[in-house]
Amino acid sequence: MDIDELVLISVDDHLVEPPTLFDAHIPDRYRDRAPKIVHTDIGDDVWMFEGEAVPYMGLNAVAGRPREEYGIEPMSYDEMRRGCWDVHERVKDMDAGGVLASLNFPSFPGFAGRLFAAASDKDLALAVVRAYNDWHIDEWCGAHPDRFIPMALPVLWDPELAADEVRRTAAKGCHSVTFTENPALLDYPSFHSDAWDPFWSAASDTDTVVSIHLGSGGKLVQTSADAPVDVMMTLQPMVVCQCAADIMWSQIPKKFPSIKFALSEGGTGWIPYFLERIDRTYELHHLWTGQDFGDKLPSEVFREHFLTCFIDDPVGVLLRDRIGIDNVCWELDYPHADSAWPRAPEELGEVLADAHPDDVAKITHDNAMRWYSFDPFTHRSREQSTVAALRAAAGDHDVSIRSLDGGRHARSTGIEIGALQEQATA
Amino acid sequence: MDIDELVLISVDDHLVEPPTLFDAHIPDRYRDRAPKIVHTDIGDDVWMFEGEAVPYMGLNAVAGRPREEYGIEPMSYDEMRRGCWDVHERVKDMDAGGVLASLNFPSFPGFAGRLFAAASDKDLALAVVRAYNDWHIDEWCGAHPDRFIPMALPVLWDPELAADEVRRTAAKGCHSVTFTENPALLDYPSFHSDAWDPFWSAASDTDTVVSIHLGSGGKLVQTSADAPVDVMMTLQPMVVCQCAADIMWSQIPKKFPSIKFALSEGGTGWIPYFLERIDRTYELHHLWTGQDFGDKLPSEVFREHFLTCFIDDPVGVLLRDRIGIDNVCWELDYPHADSAWPRAPEELGEVLADAHPDDVAKITHDNAMRWYSFDPFTHRSREQSTVAALRAAAGDHDVSIRSLDGGRHARSTGIEIGALQEQATA
Repeated sequence: MDIDELVLISVDDHLVEPPTLFDAHIPDRYRDRAPKIVHTDIGDDVWMFEGEAVPYMGLNAVAGRPREEYGIEPMSYDEMRRGCWDVHERVKDMDAGGVLASLNFPSFPGFAGRLFAAASDKDLALAVVRAYNDWHIDEWCGAHPDRFIPMALPVLWDPELAADEVRRTAAKGCHSVTFTENPALLDYPSFHSDAWDPFWSAASDTDTVVSIHLGSGGKLVQTSADAPVDVMMTLQPMVVCQCAADIMWSQIPKKFPSIKFALSEGGTGWIPYFLERIDRTYELHHLWTGQDFGDKLPSEVFREHFLTCFIDDPVGVLLRDRIGIDNVCWELDYPHADSAWPRAPEELGEVLADAHPDDVAKITHDNAMRWYSFDPFTHRSREQSTVAALRAAAGDHDVSIRSLDGGRHARSTGIEIGALQEQATA
Repeated sequence: MDIDELVLISVDDHLVEPPTLFDAHIPDRYRDRAPKIVHTDIGDDVWMFEGEAVPYMGLNAVAGRPREEYGIEPMSYDEMRRGCWDVHERVKDMDAGGVLASLNFPSFPGFAGRLFAAASDKDLALAVVRAYNDWHIDEWCGAHPDRFIPMALPVLWDPELAADEVRRTAAKGCHSVTFTENPALLDYPSFHSDAWDPFWSAASDTDTVVSIHLGSGGKLVQTSADAPVDVMMTLQPMVVCQCAADIMWSQIPKKFPSIKFALSEGGTGWIPYFLERIDRTYELHHLWTGQDFGDKLPSEVFREHFLTCFIDDPVGVLLRDRIGIDNVCWELDYPHADSAWPRAPEELGEVLADAHPDDVAKITHDNAMRWYSFDPFTHRSREQSTVAALRAAAGDHDVSIRSLDGGRHARSTGIEIGALQEQATA
């Protein structure tokens, strides 16, 4: 396999919201109350919303930094690579990294927009969610429609309004919406309630993938108060299985046969075991628990509804046929610490070295295009889309490793992965 | 592979404590206060201890029952197969199931003896733990030393006394002690505290395996209040990774290079992904988190310290070399609902069909014998120990499926796996 010829679409990256986000999109009557960036006396940039400062607007945005500094959080735009928050610079970073296209999760609002949902004025909250989505779809993704898969924030507090927003954004060409790993943990109805049916219905009707990012349940894996941070970093992707089991055993896949979920940053190596486990649980226990998947096994139902992805996951690739070769995508995770940017193609090339070219095509871009109803090739040719072509276009774009380089910033938060944005913004 | 020729040692089964447990082992001064069975007016058998009734003395003891009845809990000894609580009948069931030897976890005290540890009179608690261990080692296992691997309960509330009890039971030939998945959840010092050092030290010195059963942390996986029980049944074995990560990132393997842990009923299919994940976390983050495994990778350290096991786990068997062929055992889980007894050899034969005979020997008995310092062949020949030989010895022992068969017992607890004994007895 020639990595130069790979065409890479990443289904999980992160953007840091620029200060100008709401300028062109918030209705005038809410302009004063929309979230805004304040530059503090000590040089930090913080989002202010409803009288509260939201810390870590660029939590874990460490692309281009030395590994020794991964625990030190950027506290201002100046401390980050510009590609984190400037879409044109982002595209240059994608070129240099050989990545054709990308799905971008939010930062300061939380993966599922919890910050906005928490506002007591729900009219304001709705205006902010809509403005965010318009900015994301029209301005961020719209600037380079061949390079970004648009994805909306959900209206977390009202399933009917959530359904309306899914239909509204779908009409704008957006075919994904984020959601939380576990709404019950946020005091919303659980996956086992029928309260969300209007939302699932809207997503089904509009081919909108519900993209659930690890850590979006608002609960981190903390085994004890004195556990080192390594424990949480190891485990966070491993508990995504809780979300998958919750949805699988709920009525959602039965009531909405075309609903689609993505387990974003969920990894793949655990899936084959999970599918065995869920099939065995069904076989041994359905006679008394009353579960009924008709003439299918749970593992078959999983493959109809779940897209999975990995950053670097040799076990998942080895067992790709047990996951479902049509259910696996690749992700870059730029600009977070788990990302191999700008050397991700080389890392991926090693993992895919023995895979059939058809499998490589599915994992690197075909599955992402089909699940997310995204076609970059209406805008550009395949030949212009390979790792080699993109890197050639990047020219001498600077990707050197740079230190934060200053005492003021030496404040490790002891927290690292994207999941913690949820905690920081809760 | 000929399943008749397999020699099977199971590293995870369960015993139900018989009413006579304490008779020969509790000191006279505590005889009145030792746990005792009371037969209630409605026909239930319950353990009484310190004025409290402990429900479900045979929770999930469903061996020989039809699957439709797995949610209905036996409430008296009469409702269970006698092999659950009568060691001589147990051996006949093992014969009929083709199983040479077995490690038996406790039932009513909880996997790690939480019930006894909760007694406010700690002298009484210690006397009860010691009596339990003497009964288990001398009476239960001692009745058939070729058929049972002895295992002690820990002294959960005092690491020094815990160390003493490990040394005392080791001197009696016992080379395992149970422990909890997460002592912090039980309000004891966590794995990251050095409070347990005397206990780890005693276990290391005496070649005593610390056997940690899933669910022993006292916390079940409950995603929401309205989640069906299937969610918990699917997930419970998948969160054992939390215990493994906790111990791996603790100082325990660094301070006690010969300490051994068993992840009992922990499954194996998730381990290869876990090892990749823990190595990647180390590689990406140790420069700022300060973790140091010297010249080893975390996955290598895992293989030095952890024994894993499976009931029926094709993915784990397929990837056995990525787990470590010296780190995988088989388990029967008799008399719980996940067990395939008495057809386990047939189920295992399918999973092991393509494995090399050396690997089969390691998984079925060699690893169990080495890790647990157990040698049944000092008592009997290998030829007398095969599935075929044991089944021949069983003769016409009745293994037919029988219904509980009565209205009184139609009380589903909505709970199923052994983990829930912890909840029931907490």
